[in-house]
Amino acid sequence: MIDFDFSIPTKVLFGAGKMDALMREKLPGKLALLVISSGSVVKERGYLARMENILKHQNIDYFIYDKVSSNPKKNEIMEAAQFARDNFCDFVIGLGGSSVVDSAKAIAFMARNPGDLWDYFVTGSGKGLPPKNPALPIVAIMTTAGTGSETDQWMVVTDDKIGEMIAFGVPSTFPTLSVMDIDLMMSVPPYLTAIQGFDAFFHAAEGFIAKIATPISEAFSLQILRLVNKYLPRAVANGNDAEARSNIALASMLSGMVQSTSSCTSLHAMDHGLTSNHLDLPHAAGLLMLSKSYFEFFSKYVPDRFIKMAHIIGGVTANLPEEEKPMEFVNQMVRLQKECGVDNLKMSDYGIKFEDMEQMARNAHQTMSNLFAMDRYSLSLKETVTIFEKAYK
Amino acid sequence: MIDFDFSIPTKVLFGAGKMDALMREKLPGKLALLVISSGSVVKERGYLARMENILKHQNIDYFIYDKVSSNPKKNEIMEAAQFARDNFCDFVIGLGGSSVVDSAKAIAFMARNPGDLWDYFVTGSGKGLPPKNPALPIVAIMTTAGTGSETDQWMVVTDDKIGEMIAFGVPSTFPTLSVMDIDLMMSVPPYLTAIQGFDAFFHAAEGFIAKIATPISEAFSLQILRLVNKYLPRAVANGNDAEARSNIALASMLSGMVQSTSSCTSLHAMDHGLTSNHLDLPHAAGLLMLSKSYFEFFSKYVPDRFIKMAHIIGGVTANLPEEEKPMEFVNQMVRLQKECGVDNLKMSDYGIKFEDMEQMARNAHQTMSNLFAMDRYSLSLKETVTIFEKAYK
Repeated sequence: MIDFDFSIPTKVLFGAGKMDALMREKLPGKLALLVISSGSVVKERGYLARMENILKHQNIDYFIYDKVSSNPKKNEIMEAAQFARDNFCDFVIGLGGSSVVDSAKAIAFMARNPGDLWDYFVTGSGKGLPPKNPALPIVAIMTTAGTGSETDQWMVVTDDKIGEMIAFGVPSTFPTLSVMDIDLMMSVPPYLTAIQGFDAFFHAAEGFIAKIATPISEAFSLQILRLVNKYLPRAVANGNDAEARSNIALASMLSGMVQSTSSCTSLHAMDHGLTSNHLDLPHAAGLLMLSKSYFEFFSKYVPDRFIKMAHIIGGVTANLPEEEKPMEFVNQMVRLQKECGVDNLKMSDYGIKFEDMEQMARNAHQTMSNLFAMDRYSLSLKETVTIFEKAYK
Repeated sequence: MIDFDFSIPTKVLFGAGKMDALMREKLPGKLALLVISSGSVVKERGYLARMENILKHQNIDYFIYDKVSSNPKKNEIMEAAQFARDNFCDFVIGLGGSSVVDSAKAIAFMARNPGDLWDYFVTGSGKGLPPKNPALPIVAIMTTAGTGSETDQWMVVTDDKIGEMIAFGVPSTFPTLSVMDIDLMMSVPPYLTAIQGFDAFFHAAEGFIAKIATPISEAFSLQILRLVNKYLPRAVANGNDAEARSNIALASMLSGMVQSTSSCTSLHAMDHGLTSNHLDLPHAAGLLMLSKSYFEFFSKYVPDRFIKMAHIIGGVTANLPEEEKPMEFVNQMVRLQKECGVDNLKMSDYGIKFEDMEQMARNAHQTMSNLFAMDRYSLSLKETVTIFEKAYK
């Protein structure tokens, strides 16, 4: 029987040029910590200057924290949270991609909670303590599309000292306000556009086969698959295709909503195992490397849902033998990866060795056991290793 | 290009028995105005006693307002709002169907705003003044499924002195918390189940053909059409079919989300024209009476969207001539109405005369012009009269 709680308390301003709406929008505080990447893109492209202009126009004071590296690190979070606390910041703005926005969430959370971030994490070596306080309000202004961080409560943070990359979220780490302005996304290069678009695709597919899927998350999932299938090849081929960019941004926003109403499955856990010790390997690239082997394995266990997804992305199963129908989803997914030029990413290109596979599978189970619990078929460690090994190139 | 603001700030607790979760859920105040219908159902079935028990358990004081008639009336709203203000209520609970929950929203709004409700309404003879204050927080506990009042900001209120039935909403009139507990809905009789289920159906279809539809509202719309088509005949045939009830409750919840992300069209405006002077005629019955004539008319103007909707509810258009394809949606809708026993509702049964049609069309344009503005084809008064006349039985 259908049973769920639904809550997506984020207001989203969506559209080309929507960043300017922040001139008039009520912001949730008077003294912001503005978090940006340590890279130069938001400065060079003028996004930072525009944001500062908006804050001045709104009479909001701010500090800038510009040390976020790709893949948020615990030590950066703790430092920035301390700074926010010491300076009485009353909200946090993330201006950037998902690393920046995830960092903003983690900083907002730790700015109002004592101790260590890992005290509150509920998997890996996290202590699972109940948070003392809700996070500071969070504003997310996205410059990339795919992770859905704009409409979910999740942050992914790595402690590289202990090799754990863990996802965490509480109701107060939903952004209060998110901006999806495709004008800020037009210059994302083709490869990043492709892998981030596939992040949305995997959120949709995992959310659809997760055992806590509901008819609401399913509606989101199917719409994402439809949009990514139709528009991602176009957005990759021509970064100036505003209609394609717009629809991929929408798929991203919906993919956060899938994660708010359903869950990722063990594919995301396995990706954490893969990337936690290879922080140069982007999250979504890791998902792509594992995807064929992963979905092939699960096609046997969730056949009806695979067939539905296959139909949405252009698969025709009417004339196939019953046992081959679910694999049509995998075939179509690989076809789409080819069209986007991301069907042949290799772990070996990142110095990863075949003999690392078992350790990665172990790490996935140890740090993200909660996602394995979302699968409709319970993967053993041995089966997980097999999926890793089949994915290895 | 895609451009919209998204905000559905309501938390929904969904599932059989979920009312009990209110024992533990944080409620948004300490002194409630508990709004119920003037009818006896919530008392006789013990829902009121359960709610009082929950409030006592949560140490929340409350007053009961039990004078809401079907179709919320302005004078009742104003009286209850004055009472809430005089007694320092800090939130409002609606326990009942959509009339009760719409009343709760209007009371919560007027409890914090001076003057008359019509001072703030933006259509009809409303003065369109900006609200001074946000509404008191609202908790909605639904005992019927279909209107979507649980997940939107809209209230429909009638001033019977001036014959205006107007829809209004502001961001603060979204419920803070809604409960969709099908255990409270199992005893809704077949006829009401059918017409309320069709309310969700029309929200979906209108939201899908409205010119502000977005891919998010479209995902909701298509899921609703799918669910109503599959489950409404079952819920009507057997009120104890919990799976069917559950899915119709879900369609209702999604239909509020369509209204939060897209809009109704002129069908709802025309229904206000029809029912504002016949308050014994339920809103959804009026929609049903007008629906065939209305969608027939619009099938010519939005053919692609009609064909998509037709496919979702079982229509097959592959072998039809191009010009007949859109009408397949209307044919399937009528087939579904037949299956639910609501294909032959007659205005004449409510004492409505053929010669009233023009006045009703005028009333629709005068009081709900904002919904006519949502149509993809702009209806003249004459065309509106024609739709009314063709619908008359």
